[in-house]
Amino acid sequence: MTEENGFRVERDTMGEVRVPAEALWRAQTQRAVENFPVSGRGIEPGNIRALAQIKGAAAAVNGALGVIDADLATAIQVAAAHVAGGGFDDQFPIDVFQTGSGTSSNMNANEVIATLAAREIGRDVHPNDHVNASQSSNDVYPSSIHLAATEAVVNELIPALAHLGAALSAKADEFATVVKAGRTHLMDATPVTLGQEFGGYAAQVRNGIARLESSVPRLAELPLGGTAVGTGVNTPPGFAAAVIERLRDATGLPLTEARDHFEAQGARDGLVEASGQLRTVAIGLYKIANDIRWMGSGPRAGLGELRIPDLQPGSSIMPGKVNPVVCESVRQVSAQVIGNDAVIAFAGSQGDFELNVMLPVMARNILESVRLLAAASRMLADRCVVGLAANEEVARAYAEGSPSIVTPLNRHLGYDEAAAIAKEALASGRSIRAVVVDRGHVASGKISEAELDELLDVLRMTRP
Amino acid sequence: MTEENGFRVERDTMGEVRVPAEALWRAQTQRAVENFPVSGRGIEPGNIRALAQIKGAAAAVNGALGVIDADLATAIQVAAAHVAGGGFDDQFPIDVFQTGSGTSSNMNANEVIATLAAREIGRDVHPNDHVNASQSSNDVYPSSIHLAATEAVVNELIPALAHLGAALSAKADEFATVVKAGRTHLMDATPVTLGQEFGGYAAQVRNGIARLESSVPRLAELPLGGTAVGTGVNTPPGFAAAVIERLRDATGLPLTEARDHFEAQGARDGLVEASGQLRTVAIGLYKIANDIRWMGSGPRAGLGELRIPDLQPGSSIMPGKVNPVVCESVRQVSAQVIGNDAVIAFAGSQGDFELNVMLPVMARNILESVRLLAAASRMLADRCVVGLAANEEVARAYAEGSPSIVTPLNRHLGYDEAAAIAKEALASGRSIRAVVVDRGHVASGKISEAELDELLDVLRMTRP
Amino acid sequence: MTEENGFRVERDTMGEVRVPAEALWRAQTQRAVENFPVSGRGIEPGNIRALAQIKGAAAAVNGALGVIDADLATAIQVAAAHVAGGGFDDQFPIDVFQTGSGTSSNMNANEVIATLAAREIGRDVHPNDHVNASQSSNDVYPSSIHLAATEAVVNELIPALAHLGAALSAKADEFATVVKAGRTHLMDATPVTLGQEFGGYAAQVRNGIARLESSVPRLAELPLGGTAVGTGVNTPPGFAAAVIERLRDATGLPLTEARDHFEAQGARDGLVEASGQLRTVAIGLYKIANDIRWMGSGPRAGLGELRIPDLQPGSSIMPGKVNPVVCESVRQVSAQVIGNDAVIAFAGSQGDFELNVMLPVMARNILESVRLLAAASRMLADRCVVGLAANEEVARAYAEGSPSIVTPLNRHLGYDEAAAIAKEALASGRSIRAVVVDRGHVASGKISEAELDELLDVLRMTRP
Amino acid sequence: MTEENGFRVERDTMGEVRVPAEALWRAQTQRAVENFPVSGRGIEPGNIRALAQIKGAAAAVNGALGVIDADLATAIQVAAAHVAGGGFDDQFPIDVFQTGSGTSSNMNANEVIATLAAREIGRDVHPNDHVNASQSSNDVYPSSIHLAATEAVVNELIPALAHLGAALSAKADEFATVVKAGRTHLMDATPVTLGQEFGGYAAQVRNGIARLESSVPRLAELPLGGTAVGTGVNTPPGFAAAVIERLRDATGLPLTEARDHFEAQGARDGLVEASGQLRTVAIGLYKIANDIRWMGSGPRAGLGELRIPDLQPGSSIMPGKVNPVVCESVRQVSAQVIGNDAVIAFAGSQGDFELNVMLPVMARNILESVRLLAAASRMLADRCVVGLAANEEVARAYAEGSPSIVTPLNRHLGYDEAAAIAKEALASGRSIRAVVVDRGHVASGKISEAELDELLDVLRMTRP
Repeated sequence: MTEENGFRVERDTMGEVRVPAEALWRAQTQRAVENFPVSGRGIEPGNIRALAQIKGAAAAVNGALGVIDADLATAIQVAAAHVAGGGFDDQFPIDVFQTGSGTSSNMNANEVIATLAAREIGRDVHPNDHVNASQSSNDVYPSSIHLAATEAVVNELIPALAHLGAALSAKADEFATVVKAGRTHLMDATPVTLGQEFGGYAAQVRNGIARLESSVPRLAELPLGGTAVGTGVNTPPGFAAAVIERLRDATGLPLTEARDHFEAQGARDGLVEASGQLRTVAIGLYKIANDIRWMGSGPRAGLGELRIPDLQPGSSIMPGKVNPVVCESVRQVSAQVIGNDAVIAFAGSQGDFELNVMLPVMARNILESVRLLAAASRMLADRCVVGLAANEEVARAYAEGSPSIVTPLNRHLGYDEAAAIAKEALASGRSIRAVVVDRGHVASGKISEAELDELLDVLRMTRP
Repeated sequence: MTEENGFRVERDTMGEVRVPAEALWRAQTQRAVENFPVSGRGIEPGNIRALAQIKGAAAAVNGALGVIDADLATAIQVAAAHVAGGGFDDQFPIDVFQTGSGTSSNMNANEVIATLAAREIGRDVHPNDHVNASQSSNDVYPSSIHLAATEAVVNELIPALAHLGAALSAKADEFATVVKAGRTHLMDATPVTLGQEFGGYAAQVRNGIARLESSVPRLAELPLGGTAVGTGVNTPPGFAAAVIERLRDATGLPLTEARDHFEAQGARDGLVEASGQLRTVAIGLYKIANDIRWMGSGPRAGLGELRIPDLQPGSSIMPGKVNPVVCESVRQVSAQVIGNDAVIAFAGSQGDFELNVMLPVMARNILESVRLLAAASRMLADRCVVGLAANEEVARAYAEGSPSIVTPLNRHLGYDEAAAIAKEALASGRSIRAVVVDRGHVASGKISEAELDELLDVLRMTRP
Repeated sequence: MTEENGFRVERDTMGEVRVPAEALWRAQTQRAVENFPVSGRGIEPGNIRALAQIKGAAAAVNGALGVIDADLATAIQVAAAHVAGGGFDDQFPIDVFQTGSGTSSNMNANEVIATLAAREIGRDVHPNDHVNASQSSNDVYPSSIHLAATEAVVNELIPALAHLGAALSAKADEFATVVKAGRTHLMDATPVTLGQEFGGYAAQVRNGIARLESSVPRLAELPLGGTAVGTGVNTPPGFAAAVIERLRDATGLPLTEARDHFEAQGARDGLVEASGQLRTVAIGLYKIANDIRWMGSGPRAGLGELRIPDLQPGSSIMPGKVNPVVCESVRQVSAQVIGNDAVIAFAGSQGDFELNVMLPVMARNILESVRLLAAASRMLADRCVVGLAANEEVARAYAEGSPSIVTPLNRHLGYDEAAAIAKEALASGRSIRAVVVDRGHVASGKISEAELDELLDVLRMTRP
Repeated sequence: MTEENGFRVERDTMGEVRVPAEALWRAQTQRAVENFPVSGRGIEPGNIRALAQIKGAAAAVNGALGVIDADLATAIQVAAAHVAGGGFDDQFPIDVFQTGSGTSSNMNANEVIATLAAREIGRDVHPNDHVNASQSSNDVYPSSIHLAATEAVVNELIPALAHLGAALSAKADEFATVVKAGRTHLMDATPVTLGQEFGGYAAQVRNGIARLESSVPRLAELPLGGTAVGTGVNTPPGFAAAVIERLRDATGLPLTEARDHFEAQGARDGLVEASGQLRTVAIGLYKIANDIRWMGSGPRAGLGELRIPDLQPGSSIMPGKVNPVVCESVRQVSAQVIGNDAVIAFAGSQGDFELNVMLPVMARNILESVRLLAAASRMLADRCVVGLAANEEVARAYAEGSPSIVTPLNRHLGYDEAAAIAKEALASGRSIRAVVVDRGHVASGKISEAELDELLDVLRMTRP
């Protein structure tokens, strides 16, 4: 390990490599940096943290089982904790578009932790024989994806969705008596309240949480213990169970050991499923954001039922214009999650035999999707939903103007006569009530004035 | 309703329409037939059946609640049962690419059932006022999709997957001691058994069943009772609950009333979620079919580990060639389900306000996906998996030739020396065992001959 | 070939098969019918036609080159022409989810044509040795997809798009002076004319034609001549060129022989590209249909700028309601094309070595996409666009009410003062003009009354 | 603009904002930074450069047309050139998930350039009135996407593909006489040369270039000149044409002004089309990378036809293992491009009226796709293709062992007898030649020994 010109020379099983003198990584990391000049971006910070968390727990168990000595175990645990803390993310320079097993990033973690542990303990630490002991990239790296994704879903996304759901529910209460025209096919339909609409949005978001929770048991299954090909070659009995128990205790997450280690390494269906649920959540948010921006459209040539908070000037050319920018950001997040999900589905289908080697791209996309949805949910709640205000008069005028308020008369006059009334009202510009009277239905005794008033009360029409 | 030249004249609220004299449908169906000359295909038979099941149950409840008279109720029930039986599928001529609410198909069901019921009872039956009483297309049609999809998932797909899973598990047992080279990155890895691989496939399929079951609660929620916009306008109290109870009793399916009727009509997230799970299942099948066809590749220039049943001549030009045609059919089914799912995800995002009007295209795609996966699962089990035979000698030779069998020596000699051994063995064409001995590790006492034999036993390497 | 109980016995290289006595097909078709009980649907009629067209042209060239005798050649040509005419589509019973090379459908064509030719000529005709002479499924079947897709794009879809483009252009002229508020972010923007919007739609459709035309050269390349693996084994020199020349003459399509036969069989990029263009067209139509239905929304609680033709009653429960059903059908077609394209992209990526074996599913999806888009374009033109009418007063009122008409004042008063004017006008409910005057800009001489009138003329604002 | 505690106070039309004292941006940028805490990533550097290039050219034209004074024009040009040079990318802190029009990033450019220009000229420069003069975000921002994408396609991706194509063609020459078994359905087929396969790959890549070039005319159309809504309000006549001419001269790119400015702002079909072509290229690369990794599989339990360059140790647990890591990186890039394309297609369908407001997410995805494909193409060429070596003996043994070499005998013995020969050879383990002789075809005079030798020559079989 001689240094010259800002570089030092490291060795691995393929020979010598020049590594930047200050780098904590070693030969294999450096090879990978040079081999993959692709996107300019490394793996997600959450993925680094999860790798380090596993390394730390593995060292503890390796120490307890006598695979490595106690001092080494302690030194590796300390080093891994530092890496998991986020302070060494800049020591992970390998592009995310790398070897499909994530071996390069696993070795990156092994090397950085070995270097830090060696400093701690004052003697050499081997990235493979010590830090990676009882492990393989093939079980550790996918475990790190599932751990990171579970952590982000449980600790970031679900709370963010709960926050959004609460904001929407609060608006459902606030808008409980704001009556408006329902719209189906974009055409005037029978009345609803704005509160009912927001209650529906809140239900969508709550259902999204339930969807994510239903997929967690399969997402939180870790391949750890399968090592190279699922058989657990080179792993002492009980290793994976003990490591996962430590991780479960440390994180509070419902992590379990894979029930079938061959499924757990050959396939990545658990990520495909979870990504499908993230997509469903994204699609729910898209609908909500879209409805809100339409209800806020105008001020003069749109629907104008809602006032959306003014956050920034909307146009570089049209002075005074304010746009539903948060809704637009959310819609774009939804589009991105839909695309990220397409990556994961494609990648998930391409496993061969004992390993799916599309792992880093799956990690990138699922972790980004979780992050984006969590951020978008909080942004939508805090910068849009809480500030929404109803234009009650506009909304009520729409309700009362809708020809569909003739609907409750079906049971008294039949669908065909009701249709004739609606059409006549629309053509003549008169109210439904006036046309009913004119067509003699009150005079004939088919319906009384009092019944008519009750049947045509738009707020009453919003209740069964 | 006068007849001339093979047509009769029917009326609806927009005026007169000429309808084929023999048709059971009436004016609105006929208008829709003419308005949508698109794909040449109608809605799925399962969708027709579900519509008719709902109409029958609704008539019973409408009768019990006094919305329609008892004779009418009975006649509609009888007529609906006939339609649900499948005998009148040819009376549903409207293209699936129609109005986005499925109103045309709902009216088609109303009209056909009205005509049949009128024949039964000997007096006129109104499609809207009687057959559609207490209902709207906007709650009935999406309910019919969810009912049909739940029925197909529970009664067709899950049993088909269970059948496939059992076939794979049986092979896992049969192949339990067939040792072979594991493959990661397509490169020789440490040994596995063929049985372990098939056990992994069986686990994938079983997980697929669990995925579908986890989505059923949200798929089996019916919007029924919301009528036009979710408020339940024109529906008597208790109507939906009573109808759904009848449907639950009749079908044995875990159907429930939507917890939030605004969510249940404005969004179709439940279909998006279920489709995502179907896609995950399809991706699992893709991996399995792909591995099998690769293991059966050859006979001389491929892997040749498995013999796949010969079902048909494989080539129109190369005599004697036999191909893995069932695996290819399954792979194409998977591709179709991935595409169908993209339709559903897109359509699911496009709801506006009180109704998503992309319903018929969602119905087409989800119901087709379920049908295709069920058929493909049974075909794969019966025409491929059960007939697979292992080429045990080939498989064992691969295992023993893999340089990765050096792996268990890591703990004795370290990763770096083990790598040197593997490389030397590969370069020289000698066995790992011979190279270990030559490099003096037995002589030095680092490892005994007996240990070496045990460590290099390939079948033993497949167990932890 | 003995008959019993409605079946006869046929033989192929794998042995005997029972075939329905009346069937024109033989052993290999029957095996495939039994092997693939998947979707219940066969290949597209356009695919059958293309297969038969190739078989006829091949027979002519085989006859001319002496590969088969002249009588045989003539008999096969006659038989193939009958099949191409569409009269024997019911003799193609094999499921589309079949062997990935389409060999089963190629043999189906070979067998049916052999049977018909044998009847013609009075002696046996061999499906492989005679009808399939000089060919392989591996070049013929993909050629049939490209031929059918080219034919449908050139003869069906492009004319349908031209028809729609013309209808949109006619409306652009008709609406040339209907001024309305532009909308960006759904918010009121500076004025446009309805004609400008329809001119934009027409441009989208015309660009779609250009896109399809730009992909035709690669779509119209036929793999024919490569036979089994691209090398042209068992094909006489000049065969493919001569067959393709005959096809080009017969169809008028710009068909060419593949420039590289290994690319042409190993990859299906030409279909992926063409499908991408179909998707772009679908996305264009989606935007157009969506804008139109929004402009027609109302009648009271929507935008109400356009009147959309009434085609059918819109609701089973809300009397008198009329919905933009054609737009909805078009939107669903777009969704389906997006999903079909996902199938093709996935399938296109899965070629191995000398052949992509996802062919039938690619054929199904691309041919359906072309059909759907052609039908949807004509439906949109004929049942929606031609009947659209503008609500000119509503549109003008929107234009005049938009605060963004302050924009032309930027150059006179600066963006910041213009913004202040717009906000004051909106808050006070006064006109932009009044606020400009009140804030003293006329008095100060910054702008004259005449300039103000000209600058605030909404129709003038629609021209540069 | 007072400073305190590291912040200064800026104003815009909505009031005061605190901005970091050192920042070159102003109020609107700061608002957007705070409004969109989503992904943590800004817009692509290529997008920043394109924005600045447009700003510079616009300033020159605004100066020439007298919209702004000559000193201002010069100062803005100088400032814009600095930004375009890449030195101020850190002054673009706004998240890419922002307002859907990209107004925030356009204003960011306006503000940074205004600040730099003000320093240059020594008096205030207004972001809207001066830098953005004659422009709107609605025409400038999409123009910047098209400019950046055209630039990257023409100057980065097409050259990278040409480089890869050349590397593949060189291998096609090198491997011209390496005969091997063709593989269809993964099963042994008639022989091909390795050179023919690489020739096919080169053709795929060349076709990819042609695909991109065919889409450039529509990608290189700039909306510039339409300003707010396509009408060109607030733009002097000739402005856009002059700006685009300057850009064309400066960049050498085939940029043109949009033929229809309403299409050019309401729709983004040109990006959807281009993304579809990028996806087709990605799918081509996927197939190539996949074939190569399979041909290199082994060393003992795989196909072993190719030796892939060793770049790095392949496994953290299996010593000496080397994997096709570059192919895996390329495959993951392809997956990402497929997903990015799904984002663009979805976003492209969601335009409303005069503007599609999914612009920044489209920009992110298309520009990333181009970058990834260019990097992956060069990496595949330089780190994999150039170093590939053939295992000629293995390849020839496969060719000679394939039962499909019986195919040339079809014309002499018929398909049925040839099939019987192939099956007998395979079952008995004898050569095709021996079986032909044994079955008496030489003795009977059907075929001579010399003919047999010629027909069964595997290299000859690779030529027509």
